Amino acid sequence: MAVTAYRADIIYTSVPERYEVYPASYLLVRDGLVEGIYTELPEKYRGVALEDFSRSLLIPAFVDLHVHAPQFLQSGLGMDKELIAWLNEHTFPLENRFADPLYAREAYDLFTDALIYHGTLRACVLGTVHRKSTEILFQCLAEKGIGAFVGKVNMDRHCPDYLRENTADSLRETEELALAFSGHHLVKPILTPRFAPTSSEELLEGLGRLSQKYNLPVQSHLAENRREVAWVKELFPAHPNYASVYRHFGLLGHTPSLMAHGIYLGDDEVELLRNSNVTLVHCPDANINLSSGIMPARRWLKAGIRLALGSDVGAGHTLAMNRVMRSAVQLSKLQNLAVPGEKPLTSSEAFYLGTRAGGEFFGKVGSFEKGFSFDALVIADDPFTTAGLSPEERLQKFIYAGEPSEITARFVNGTRL
Amino acid sequence: MAVTAYRADIIYTSVPERYEVYPASYLLVRDGLVEGIYTELPEKYRGVALEDFSRSLLIPAFVDLHVHAPQFLQSGLGMDKELIAWLNEHTFPLENRFADPLYAREAYDLFTDALIYHGTLRACVLGTVHRKSTEILFQCLAEKGIGAFVGKVNMDRHCPDYLRENTADSLRETEELALAFSGHHLVKPILTPRFAPTSSEELLEGLGRLSQKYNLPVQSHLAENRREVAWVKELFPAHPNYASVYRHFGLLGHTPSLMAHGIYLGDDEVELLRNSNVTLVHCPDANINLSSGIMPARRWLKAGIRLALGSDVGAGHTLAMNRVMRSAVQLSKLQNLAVPGEKPLTSSEAFYLGTRAGGEFFGKVGSFEKGFSFDALVIADDPFTTAGLSPEERLQKFIYAGEPSEITARFVNGTRL
Repeated sequence: MAVTAYRADIIYTSVPERYEVYPASYLLVRDGLVEGIYTELPEKYRGVALEDFSRSLLIPAFVDLHVHAPQFLQSGLGMDKELIAWLNEHTFPLENRFADPLYAREAYDLFTDALIYHGTLRACVLGTVHRKSTEILFQCLAEKGIGAFVGKVNMDRHCPDYLRENTADSLRETEELALAFSGHHLVKPILTPRFAPTSSEELLEGLGRLSQKYNLPVQSHLAENRREVAWVKELFPAHPNYASVYRHFGLLGHTPSLMAHGIYLGDDEVELLRNSNVTLVHCPDANINLSSGIMPARRWLKAGIRLALGSDVGAGHTLAMNRVMRSAVQLSKLQNLAVPGEKPLTSSEAFYLGTRAGGEFFGKVGSFEKGFSFDALVIADDPFTTAGLSPEERLQKFIYAGEPSEITARFVNGTRL
Repeated sequence: MAVTAYRADIIYTSVPERYEVYPASYLLVRDGLVEGIYTELPEKYRGVALEDFSRSLLIPAFVDLHVHAPQFLQSGLGMDKELIAWLNEHTFPLENRFADPLYAREAYDLFTDALIYHGTLRACVLGTVHRKSTEILFQCLAEKGIGAFVGKVNMDRHCPDYLRENTADSLRETEELALAFSGHHLVKPILTPRFAPTSSEELLEGLGRLSQKYNLPVQSHLAENRREVAWVKELFPAHPNYASVYRHFGLLGHTPSLMAHGIYLGDDEVELLRNSNVTLVHCPDANINLSSGIMPARRWLKAGIRLALGSDVGAGHTLAMNRVMRSAVQLSKLQNLAVPGEKPLTSSEAFYLGTRAGGEFFGKVGSFEKGFSFDALVIADDPFTTAGLSPEERLQKFIYAGEPSEITARFVNGTRL
């Protein structure tokens, strides 16, 4: 019986409305899965291995559903620009460096270490158009033992020559990569057309076919910026709206799909997304940094759209998902000042979005409910500044003001990293 | 001749519009003041002590013009509330603990260390109403060698009984404290009525008299929240607006004055503040955390109002002024989306606000112009992620995504801490 008990102040969410709190309790893990939480260690578990994290918080590890691995190197640069200029002047030249596998190895090692350091142990990651470098990205994540979906970016128009792919090659390489990595237990492939404007119809059609053929999930971008939305309208005049373009080509909701941003959605798009297999990935830092706008998160939640959180590094400036949760709450407060009916997100809602809601993309991940993967962080917060606080208050404090250096242990599937 | 040369990638602002950049250059310091910056070490300085920070950035240290020392302990708590509820439910009970000098000593040591760790080497600090604890705050700051103005809070109405002062005692203790600390070269007293609603007219009048008698500067709060503004209107019906209340009692612009926030100002208040001896302290994090609103920073700058930055910890969640600079830029981007004429703050403008503009309150501080106090930070940023970047780009990256652990040396008045 491979059972371990962890003693700590345990806190997590199973629903957005509230935290589940177990001060000074025992979380039992069997074969990597949560078996149960007990305030006293039950008789039958008296002999099991016990890891004592008393006085520390034990929380589900963070889940980042939208992060560009190469752009980790450009965090904080070009923040005086909007989306399209930022792509052309900063992102594309940087991504070109990933044609060099040696550079990619060094960069992706750094990226993966930083991801783990900040407590993100499951992520949906975008690479570049380069096949070899994307293989390296798969390997880095797999070697270091965290869970991920990884996508080779597809892009065959409206980008610099040095990144533009031949459509047939792009599809072939994507298929080969997907096959090569489909068997890994933690790191898996995901189709990743950059976004509609950089994709020919032929490319979108081919990716839609691959998605069906191998039952592959999809990640892309949707309605981040007003100019981008207008551009898509121009490029795809036959389609009623942006979301419909992906839908038409079999890339939206046919298999589990992630769409980053979704700030500017019309009523018909909301209709398409609600109660669907699509998760909108809210990336508050990126949205503010690129002057894109504020996603009406409360409105989308009320409409029945599935939401989760992404750092969107490098348009987002930090990998720390606790800070991303804070930014989501902050933007929702500003949205509430502008539209009084749209109540701010609460702390537990933001935490839910960055753990349980995002974790759903990976299966039973992001919570400590029975049967969930034991993906966890131990937070050793400062005893003096948190004296007398409840676990809930301490977690709120960590979300707002916590530093990654306070994370003192990390677990994926029950394995300590 | 007490001269030292510092070799580094030197960058600072003397005007908001641009950075002054000296890659791989020498900054000469004589008796704690900046003597000059040279790309080659001049012949006459060949023999001086040289500290080599090659490959690191050398920047002016941060200046925080509004920070509540006791509230450092509550950073990140109660962030689901607006100003008045947050004060009553979180801040006042915490501030009550500072009746105990032993608690104050431990808390203020921690606060001062954290301030220094984050690179803030000049600050305008608010204490509590407690005389003894405020003395301890003076001592902590003075012992650790940073520059500060420190204020005992005055508050004689509209607060819990346990914090309410007798007006005469409040004035007497304030005067005694001011006299006791007026001679210190780095840590000085500042009058600190909490804000108009918690001050009787008698208290404000008495503080105005003290201000004139000893030529003491003043710090307080102004127009942070719509409900607060309405409350002031109710409490002081004889005065045309909020700013006029302070003005009437000799607490606004008669001596150098700091007013935190200033989000909701009428045209007549703008007229009162422009080209005056008053600095509005913009605290973007606090404004968003307490759902107060967005200060129209660009509009105030255009109107000729003097601005600087404050962390406003604990309503602000971080002491890191580089993050506060980032938040100021971020909020200005959202303001620009709402009011397209009001252009976002640039990176150099935000840096200027958090160094040179704030430093002015202390004299020649916050820049590396000749004759300025050598208050500086050495930033050892990561060589791989910043490869090929200019000092300006590296500083932008630090503002957005830098961690305090990258600060490897700190100087105040030429003395290394």
